[in-house]
Amino acid sequence: MKELIFATGNAHKVQEAAQIIGLRAPGISVLPYSGESPAETGTSFLENARIKSLAAFQATGKPAFADDSGICVDVMGGAPGIFSAIWSGTRSDVANRDLLLAQLKEIPIEYRQASFVCTISLIAEDLDVSFTGVWPGYISFEARGNGGFGYDPVFIPEGFQLTAAELEPELKNLISHRAMAMSELAMFLAQ
Amino acid sequence: MKELIFATGNAHKVQEAAQIIGLRAPGISVLPYSGESPAETGTSFLENARIKSLAAFQATGKPAFADDSGICVDVMGGAPGIFSAIWSGTRSDVANRDLLLAQLKEIPIEYRQASFVCTISLIAEDLDVSFTGVWPGYISFEARGNGGFGYDPVFIPEGFQLTAAELEPELKNLISHRAMAMSELAMFLAQ
Repeated sequence: MKELIFATGNAHKVQEAAQIIGLRAPGISVLPYSGESPAETGTSFLENARIKSLAAFQATGKPAFADDSGICVDVMGGAPGIFSAIWSGTRSDVANRDLLLAQLKEIPIEYRQASFVCTISLIAEDLDVSFTGVWPGYISFEARGNGGFGYDPVFIPEGFQLTAAELEPELKNLISHRAMAMSELAMFLAQ
Repeated sequence: MKELIFATGNAHKVQEAAQIIGLRAPGISVLPYSGESPAETGTSFLENARIKSLAAFQATGKPAFADDSGICVDVMGGAPGIFSAIWSGTRSDVANRDLLLAQLKEIPIEYRQASFVCTISLIAEDLDVSFTGVWPGYISFEARGNGGFGYDPVFIPEGFQLTAAELEPELKNLISHRAMAMSELAMFLAQ
């Protein structure tokens, strides 16, 4: 495997993936796939990731992976979950996290536990596997930090006082949910 | 017990409750309590209902009940749940249900199961009890009907083609989640 298709329209994610896979499996180039994105009609991270990886594999004929990820808030029963990217009914990161903060306004700190979850589906000829990373923490009371994207400014990882958007990108790329799932993928690819 | 305080700012609910309790426990008048409403910092319907019933009991010295209710969508892990009333970050019924429809836009009919849940907490001297009603159904693809309130226009009860907002109010008041919880309360009061 020399070329690996990453089915995502998100340039941030491609950058993260290339960095992580480059480290562990240096012979492999990660190429973004910008074909028409199929409707994400799954009801789990894995189902949605697999819809995207399968579409990219079928379109390109090359090994393809896709991720689906989101923020899961315990007191919300795991929501936003698969709805994270359109939580506010739009794909605006700011609108999505502002809505989450507004919804959780009355919830005290001890009930604000949340996890970032990322599931990657990899599909190739005779291959159909998945990898999941979970990054536990809690939801802050206000957005802080300019790094990252999505819910990073409102997520405080366990063991930190800073939000994920305030962490050094290099650090985040080592410990995040996506980093964990990507590392699992990279280790698999390195074999 | 002649007078029973209903701690709610929602005139629709007072009307529903008076109708249901009037039927089963005709000697009891339901009086709305319009004191300052305490912050609903609970993490379950029961906790939030009890915060309100306790505040009303303490303020009035009379037996008081309160309900907490919401719509629980299976594929969202039970959310909106306790966040139903401020789902959009505002208390606008229209904004809340439009947001839910937008979030579920890609979810096919077979995964749109939801339940309306209502928990009532009743507190009096030497009394601290609760009653819960569950109304199963699913979330429609668009809002329909002018009756009801809240999420009624987007909730299709099991066994119906109509939304809860299209049902006759008399019918809804017999079979809804709140009707079930209120009936349990009324039967308890009638003893």
